[in-house]
Amino acid sequence: MNTILHDFIIEEHIKSALKEDIGFGDITTDFITEDNDKLTAKLIAREDGILCGYRVFAKVFKILDPSISIKFYFVDGDKIKAGDKLAEISGSARFILNGERVALNYIQRMSGIATETNKYVLALKDYKANISDTRKTTPNFRLFEKYAVKIGGGTLHRYNLSDCAMIKDNHIKYAGSITKAVEILKKNISHTHKIEIECDTLEQVKEAIDCGADIIMLDNMSPQAMDYACQFIKGRAIVEASGNINFETIKKIAQCGVDIISSSAIVAKAKTLDLALDI
Amino acid sequence: MNTILHDFIIEEHIKSALKEDIGFGDITTDFITEDNDKLTAKLIAREDGILCGYRVFAKVFKILDPSISIKFYFVDGDKIKAGDKLAEISGSARFILNGERVALNYIQRMSGIATETNKYVLALKDYKANISDTRKTTPNFRLFEKYAVKIGGGTLHRYNLSDCAMIKDNHIKYAGSITKAVEILKKNISHTHKIEIECDTLEQVKEAIDCGADIIMLDNMSPQAMDYACQFIKGRAIVEASGNINFETIKKIAQCGVDIISSSAIVAKAKTLDLALDI
Amino acid sequence: MNTILHDFIIEEHIKSALKEDIGFGDITTDFITEDNDKLTAKLIAREDGILCGYRVFAKVFKILDPSISIKFYFVDGDKIKAGDKLAEISGSARFILNGERVALNYIQRMSGIATETNKYVLALKDYKANISDTRKTTPNFRLFEKYAVKIGGGTLHRYNLSDCAMIKDNHIKYAGSITKAVEILKKNISHTHKIEIECDTLEQVKEAIDCGADIIMLDNMSPQAMDYACQFIKGRAIVEASGNINFETIKKIAQCGVDIISSSAIVAKAKTLDLALDI
Amino acid sequence: MNTILHDFIIEEHIKSALKEDIGFGDITTDFITEDNDKLTAKLIAREDGILCGYRVFAKVFKILDPSISIKFYFVDGDKIKAGDKLAEISGSARFILNGERVALNYIQRMSGIATETNKYVLALKDYKANISDTRKTTPNFRLFEKYAVKIGGGTLHRYNLSDCAMIKDNHIKYAGSITKAVEILKKNISHTHKIEIECDTLEQVKEAIDCGADIIMLDNMSPQAMDYACQFIKGRAIVEASGNINFETIKKIAQCGVDIISSSAIVAKAKTLDLALDI
Amino acid sequence: MNTILHDFIIEEHIKSALKEDIGFGDITTDFITEDNDKLTAKLIAREDGILCGYRVFAKVFKILDPSISIKFYFVDGDKIKAGDKLAEISGSARFILNGERVALNYIQRMSGIATETNKYVLALKDYKANISDTRKTTPNFRLFEKYAVKIGGGTLHRYNLSDCAMIKDNHIKYAGSITKAVEILKKNISHTHKIEIECDTLEQVKEAIDCGADIIMLDNMSPQAMDYACQFIKGRAIVEASGNINFETIKKIAQCGVDIISSSAIVAKAKTLDLALDI
Amino acid sequence: MNTILHDFIIEEHIKSALKEDIGFGDITTDFITEDNDKLTAKLIAREDGILCGYRVFAKVFKILDPSISIKFYFVDGDKIKAGDKLAEISGSARFILNGERVALNYIQRMSGIATETNKYVLALKDYKANISDTRKTTPNFRLFEKYAVKIGGGTLHRYNLSDCAMIKDNHIKYAGSITKAVEILKKNISHTHKIEIECDTLEQVKEAIDCGADIIMLDNMSPQAMDYACQFIKGRAIVEASGNINFETIKKIAQCGVDIISSSAIVAKAKTLDLALDI
Repeated sequence: MNTILHDFIIEEHIKSALKEDIGFGDITTDFITEDNDKLTAKLIAREDGILCGYRVFAKVFKILDPSISIKFYFVDGDKIKAGDKLAEISGSARFILNGERVALNYIQRMSGIATETNKYVLALKDYKANISDTRKTTPNFRLFEKYAVKIGGGTLHRYNLSDCAMIKDNHIKYAGSITKAVEILKKNISHTHKIEIECDTLEQVKEAIDCGADIIMLDNMSPQAMDYACQFIKGRAIVEASGNINFETIKKIAQCGVDIISSSAIVAKAKTLDLALDI
Repeated sequence: MNTILHDFIIEEHIKSALKEDIGFGDITTDFITEDNDKLTAKLIAREDGILCGYRVFAKVFKILDPSISIKFYFVDGDKIKAGDKLAEISGSARFILNGERVALNYIQRMSGIATETNKYVLALKDYKANISDTRKTTPNFRLFEKYAVKIGGGTLHRYNLSDCAMIKDNHIKYAGSITKAVEILKKNISHTHKIEIECDTLEQVKEAIDCGADIIMLDNMSPQAMDYACQFIKGRAIVEASGNINFETIKKIAQCGVDIISSSAIVAKAKTLDLALDI
Repeated sequence: MNTILHDFIIEEHIKSALKEDIGFGDITTDFITEDNDKLTAKLIAREDGILCGYRVFAKVFKILDPSISIKFYFVDGDKIKAGDKLAEISGSARFILNGERVALNYIQRMSGIATETNKYVLALKDYKANISDTRKTTPNFRLFEKYAVKIGGGTLHRYNLSDCAMIKDNHIKYAGSITKAVEILKKNISHTHKIEIECDTLEQVKEAIDCGADIIMLDNMSPQAMDYACQFIKGRAIVEASGNINFETIKKIAQCGVDIISSSAIVAKAKTLDLALDI
Repeated sequence: MNTILHDFIIEEHIKSALKEDIGFGDITTDFITEDNDKLTAKLIAREDGILCGYRVFAKVFKILDPSISIKFYFVDGDKIKAGDKLAEISGSARFILNGERVALNYIQRMSGIATETNKYVLALKDYKANISDTRKTTPNFRLFEKYAVKIGGGTLHRYNLSDCAMIKDNHIKYAGSITKAVEILKKNISHTHKIEIECDTLEQVKEAIDCGADIIMLDNMSPQAMDYACQFIKGRAIVEASGNINFETIKKIAQCGVDIISSSAIVAKAKTLDLALDI
Repeated sequence: MNTILHDFIIEEHIKSALKEDIGFGDITTDFITEDNDKLTAKLIAREDGILCGYRVFAKVFKILDPSISIKFYFVDGDKIKAGDKLAEISGSARFILNGERVALNYIQRMSGIATETNKYVLALKDYKANISDTRKTTPNFRLFEKYAVKIGGGTLHRYNLSDCAMIKDNHIKYAGSITKAVEILKKNISHTHKIEIECDTLEQVKEAIDCGADIIMLDNMSPQAMDYACQFIKGRAIVEASGNINFETIKKIAQCGVDIISSSAIVAKAKTLDLALDI
Repeated sequence: MNTILHDFIIEEHIKSALKEDIGFGDITTDFITEDNDKLTAKLIAREDGILCGYRVFAKVFKILDPSISIKFYFVDGDKIKAGDKLAEISGSARFILNGERVALNYIQRMSGIATETNKYVLALKDYKANISDTRKTTPNFRLFEKYAVKIGGGTLHRYNLSDCAMIKDNHIKYAGSITKAVEILKKNISHTHKIEIECDTLEQVKEAIDCGADIIMLDNMSPQAMDYACQFIKGRAIVEASGNINFETIKKIAQCGVDIISSSAIVAKAKTLDLALDI
């Protein structure tokens, strides 16, 4: 598994989050601890899950004080169990206490999403279909959320509005038809970009295939309709199912033979994973 | 109800979120819609809840195009029901489609938190205790999350590390005792700031009261211990209960007579509220 | 033709450019002009070309003084001839003189690139092939340069490293083979992204086709080799020619039947178009 | 030769350029290379010229990964020949591939401008006159372009509107006359700033000298007029020639005895120098 | 005494200040010094006072060149005397000269404020009262000014409008009465925040005490009135005196028995402390 | 008198200052005032002085709420007397109270500096000499401080290290002599920049004149020495006196016939002017 979180990019995000939490200073710790007070703390898992964000966690402390040392016993993507000692951190008591909450806020959210995603991944392990995220993310936190989906084993959908064209009902209305919409896009978008078409009906699926769509999204279709659509498409396009996906319905949808099941739930409904710093 | 979201502050956050989602352009909409295409859309509630973030929602579109007009039929804090028409938006089709996802990402998260908070508020309506949030928030999204807690009827805990001192176990260790920690802080912090002390035992509660704590946090105590603590404190300090708070345990805790019940759950476990733009 | 330059995005770039040029004030104009001095100026073309950047030009002045009025007689993409009056601007003498150089610096560079691109577009008008840009752009000016390529009639290549995978010789080396590189990517990248493979030999072309590449880049191949490659590929992938493309060789390459000819020359070798503000 | 590029200033520019090119990640390299893959690459000159920007080139990689090591065999201002090995870079394959394009985009543009400038410098080597740049630069890239002009041996003109007053025709109009314009400026600008006056006629030159101009710009004058002007001025002010300067006319202008020949061509018409990273 | 200036926060402020002073380069030093020129300089006190800002001073040079070494012989809060050698700095001549002015601008202002504050602290040493600052600070320089007040021995007032409620005459008018204003705030503000009430009359003091104010500000009252107010309040609230505080009146006010005397003078009227870099 | 404060530049500075003062909200005003509460307030002078910063003052409120209306009865540079009504402001009570302190912090500091400068200007009104500022300014507040000096009638010294060369003792040491330092600079700096030389002795003055210095700074010289220097220089360079300038010594120095007297006192020792918002 590879990183997509560049240090110089997350550094800015973390500095901003530290300012948000530190304000004009930690008025408790700054006055009570002495310059030379040291501590050693352990990051402990309090529930089972998938670890995600260990470099972000470490970076929080490194920004506060580069001399803090952190040793991780697990890396992103590892399964962790309640009670596992994930990391040991030691250094300035003041700066570790200053950064504790922010560091946990990152790693708990990211691990929560990775863990939630992984539940879907496991549920789909006997199917061709992969679980994918959506653009329903927390404003200005997308990079971290998508990274967590990837770590959890999910497939990423387009990052934003510019890296893949997606024709929805409104676009069809403004263009006149699916066919005309595709025509306009083929004339205008980069040859390096794909075109996905959101289809509500089998007629739309047929038109979409005819005009060379790269991806067909079956939106809120019944299992029967999806079954039929997959057989009709037969590999001529990637097939994505979307709409009201949840942990209960996911296998049934996978059985239809779709390639991708996209759902906002793996991000929006993930809860934070319970991790704590024992000092 | 009053605003705490200044326009010039949220404007920056929203611009950054729009860049996150628009990238170098919405390659579908920008090419398919014409400069003069107009649309009118309705924001519809798909489930019951508390509306929160309507000005943020509107601001997203105003940044993209100041000529877009938006009329809201509800304001922040209003109860909404599935099917309610919350707002009508009309103007440039291109810019409305460009901003739709970001606007919804804000208002759905904020309304979700307000709705979750309000469930606790209603549960506590026959008790003195108020529900309060914590610092376990999404990095760089705290302003919006705390605003939503307030709108949902919750009480806000300290915003960050600088607006209230909170003495925890580690501080006690470094200072030597609760009494010494309070002494150090009283000498050093602003007279405009309060001191809260996290207590695990009744002995600690007594020491905290003796040295003049403004707020006593009863951390993970049994109902009996909390009962006893409240009777002992008898109004000499604000009493806050914390630790493993959830919707099931909350009334039991309130019965002990605490003033505040603080819980990360109202933010961290809130799900997004289902709202949609019907175009 | 549609815009991809959002106002709230270019506004930041322009403010930064204005600060670069204004420093702590225009010490000549600020002292010589009076608050109420007005002027009317014409933007005149001094050579033939394609206009590009008129909204950026206007925005420069609007940032300095929203009451300045600007009327354009041409829009982006229009052919302009030496002597054409492109726009009329009137308002505060001070602010117009303050912004003149920055406004021209944008519109002259952008029009220069659109004009250069259009020469290639016209040369290729009888061929299937389109001219495309590359990532060889001026640091932090890419949005404007790519917009100008589009306005000039060119096709845009991938915007950056994240919106399309491109397998080059080094990637092949690290993966072991083209086939293995594609395997790794198909497992990891979004289903919404394409894979392009840079091929130096016909053997590579064959391997690339076999493993399902979306785009084959023929890198520095002879016309014969390109001819052969196109016949071999026969529509199974988009074919792109690259390497030592210039205005002299472009038609010869187009004759091979490639779909895209990508060249850094349309940006890197474009000269600024001669436009002037006559006051 | 001395540096004018402070590390903490270029660092911000480069980080922004890296974000422009990396987007949300290099989806090819990040997945294909392993964390421990290393590479060694050579920066090779593919044409003759003047090297410029080696520290910027190196900084790109240092931002991505401080452990990358780079050894340069030439420094800014050195003449380089096609085939010269300019530098050797070794370290993480992933980060070197991530930064390659941005690093080259800087050094190729900067070296191109230094090389173009140097052609003029050599052409003028038997004359008193120096070649100077103008404010016709790429928005937000001026610091790098002016640095390259300096490295190429050119003289820098004012950096922006605030470090030297320059009276042009419009200023004369608003002030009433050259004499009145100078009067206003002498009363208002810092005694540490010079006054330059753009003159179209010999009458203007005389008036400018009479009122104590520091620099006289002869704008678009014939060689005879410039000859005459230089003899008239006789060292009482610096004489600058401007307008339609190109490589063909430059010696003729220098023969008139001017001190400075200013031209936008050395920046605006410079092409990128062909340098490549051989891996 | 403990730090409240986090390195990652002051770093941004200092970089911005360095850009303000360096512009596009130090055109004197950059050309006259050679890359390898070294120097050693001493920071000397030219008048008596309290040192403040030594880490900020050092950071200025570290940003310019991490290899510059700085040894301080005094730390923040130390009394220094004219002639004292405060620090020795050695390293690159160029970068030390580049940063000299900015480094001194910080440390001289901060030491000036600490020194001025300390005069008041000493004057009050036999009284219960502490001197406190206000929100009358230099825009965007508050963090440094408040830090200097603390170092000088002063007590800090609220940092900004969000960390303590303060009811002034206008708030009383809008609420209807002090009692109603307090009611509104108790319902709305965090339980972690205090309420301070500005009182002009003894009637207001009584009402303020009755409704449970945490802090009573006696605004511009006569010594007699303050005397009376203190006796009336008798420890039920913190008592703060404000309005026309100066070095002459301060002891008289302290004698009334107030807890805090707040004054903008310690910041707004402090002069810079005379420190110089002897090279 | 002309402006040098561009709106788009001060806007950023003010937004940052507002964030500094508002934090996460004005917890008093935001809860006590209602959305529709209006107020009208007067800006009143409480002492005599020179008004400076009225546009900045107004801009603070316009950022908070564009519908607030402000009418000024005086403009920058006007003499104001204690009791004068300077402006009337009316609009949203909430936003006016939110911005009051920040608006006053700007205008009081700026007016204080203009007032202090003007005292020196009046003292010098019978002499040739002008008073000038220095680079000893508050970090990140220079633009406002220099503007205030100008409004007070002072002359501005160089803005920063890049707009005028100034040779000091250390530069002389590194270059070898004044003559060599000037030689290096003439070869390297822009022809649009002046060279100032700091001279401690008459020998240095002579050498500086011989090598063509534009400005001679007489540093800490006795009146006799300055007298002699002025007679020697006789208009061949601008003469600037510096070092230990204060209100007492200034006329004596002016009598020596210097052109400029530069002093940090007009900024560093100015006190804030007493202005208040009466609501």
